[in-house]
Amino acid sequence: MGNNTDIPVTVIGLGLMGRALAGAFLEAGHPTTVWNRTTSKADRLVAEGARLAPTVGDALQAGPLTVICLTDYQAVREVLDATELDGTTLVNLTSGSSAQAREAARWAERHGARYLDGAVMAVPPAIGTAEAVILHSGPRPVFDEHEPALAALGTVTHLGGDPGLASLYDAAGLAMMWSVLNAWLQGTALLGTAGVDAATFAPFAQQIATVVAGWLPGYAEQIDRGAFPAEVSALETDARAMAHLVEESEAAGVDAGLPKLIKAMADRSIAAGHGAEQYPVLIQEFRTPGQLRGTHEEVDEAPLEPAPRNAPEA
Amino acid sequence: MGNNTDIPVTVIGLGLMGRALAGAFLEAGHPTTVWNRTTSKADRLVAEGARLAPTVGDALQAGPLTVICLTDYQAVREVLDATELDGTTLVNLTSGSSAQAREAARWAERHGARYLDGAVMAVPPAIGTAEAVILHSGPRPVFDEHEPALAALGTVTHLGGDPGLASLYDAAGLAMMWSVLNAWLQGTALLGTAGVDAATFAPFAQQIATVVAGWLPGYAEQIDRGAFPAEVSALETDARAMAHLVEESEAAGVDAGLPKLIKAMADRSIAAGHGAEQYPVLIQEFRTPGQLRGTHEEVDEAPLEPAPRNAPEA
Repeated sequence: MGNNTDIPVTVIGLGLMGRALAGAFLEAGHPTTVWNRTTSKADRLVAEGARLAPTVGDALQAGPLTVICLTDYQAVREVLDATELDGTTLVNLTSGSSAQAREAARWAERHGARYLDGAVMAVPPAIGTAEAVILHSGPRPVFDEHEPALAALGTVTHLGGDPGLASLYDAAGLAMMWSVLNAWLQGTALLGTAGVDAATFAPFAQQIATVVAGWLPGYAEQIDRGAFPAEVSALETDARAMAHLVEESEAAGVDAGLPKLIKAMADRSIAAGHGAEQYPVLIQEFRTPGQLRGTHEEVDEAPLEPAPRNAPEA
Repeated sequence: MGNNTDIPVTVIGLGLMGRALAGAFLEAGHPTTVWNRTTSKADRLVAEGARLAPTVGDALQAGPLTVICLTDYQAVREVLDATELDGTTLVNLTSGSSAQAREAARWAERHGARYLDGAVMAVPPAIGTAEAVILHSGPRPVFDEHEPALAALGTVTHLGGDPGLASLYDAAGLAMMWSVLNAWLQGTALLGTAGVDAATFAPFAQQIATVVAGWLPGYAEQIDRGAFPAEVSALETDARAMAHLVEESEAAGVDAGLPKLIKAMADRSIAAGHGAEQYPVLIQEFRTPGQLRGTHEEVDEAPLEPAPRNAPEA
């Protein structure tokens, strides 16, 4: 990503993440100015060569690029509101929603600043390594101009011009993270009732998750085409196996909330007439808010049938 | 795996899966006897060299190993009940619960048969290839003796002596499969509201799932030790990011059932005093059935706070 390590950068907000960001800039050789309301948070960075700006305005004057990492978007407005922003580039890595990101982008534009919103998909210790994925959204030329400096922070990506995209991808990524973890916990709890320890089950769960993840690009084509032919199996067949999963969980005395939600989503799609189609047809249920409580009650009352997933016959 | 393709095998039940199993045995060169209540299902297999047994008893006499793939466990009992089983080995690949598998194992033992339970984690067209994972549980020596023949069906694995294990692993694997798919659908629906198509998002989702799956063996050690130090992040911090995910979903008008369930599980664990521990501490909630509806209501009423996941500060 170039050797432009002499570009001066500014970091506003020195929480755990802000300090990691400033530290990565320093390590890459960038002249780094920092600002924080509680100045003592800057002590170690100053010892490592950072300059502590006396005011936010002074910090923003130090260079063409300012990275912001504050508590929330409200704090961003409070900190920057009385400051001259004309001509500045702000990269806002503060956690927030896509709506907040879009509003902040409009606000920055009104103040003459160029604005990228970002999401850090990493923990502070990973910042400065390739493992730290940092998502950006907003005007592409602004990203291109500052990518050489931003690259000091980790693996930086530009998602598109809509400044809300970084937050949305972040939320979607977290949904995947928690879902993989929860499914693994569900399986670990189930197998634990048969004396299987977590370490024994984990590689199996890892393999399944990895294999299924590999199906997503192909399934995505079905969604983009809006056609869901049951090439491999039909949702109706899946739903019978889901009943098995609910049954196993309840019989084992483990929480059945996740299996019931899985089945409730499929039941909604089948009720809407999609039982003979393939799994990704469920996208229609995810796109439309449903009556979660209602479908749960349906599941509770429905008889649990065994799952002839293997399409056997005698 | 050996070259013991001259071992005679029997397949009972010629649905789609049963026919695939018999076909794979034939292709590997095994003298293959089949039986099905509706004999016409055997026509094509007979043309390929299979022998159609006139009775179940005759089918079982044809060799030392009988693979069963029927509609359900009830059908297995009905088909085999009046048959001499003494000295036979049954490998039951019929779909069912772990309780049914254990009961069938006891029943087989009473009738003098040796018994393995199995689960086919594959669709019929994959049978006979390495892609077809077939899980077995029951006495290890029985599996070892018949593995050379069973290997004709796919990648065969022995999970342990408890005959219920194959069903439990199968259920756990399906929970992982549906969870990865549902999380991906959640993200696809969310990003769709910003005009991102499914094909654009899929590789991102695939990467996250694969990376997170790689954490499972490490997290499993925490569960087996029963100690959950917050080395990377604390559950309390995760819960704030979960509130963001619920908020993004509701604001975008997509179904929030999955995000709310994710948050409800974390909220239960935090309420039980585990907010400062790491994510796998949630295993305690998965092990214990909770009041799903109650926690959902809590989520609905709780104010949604922004998520300072990046530990920032001003």
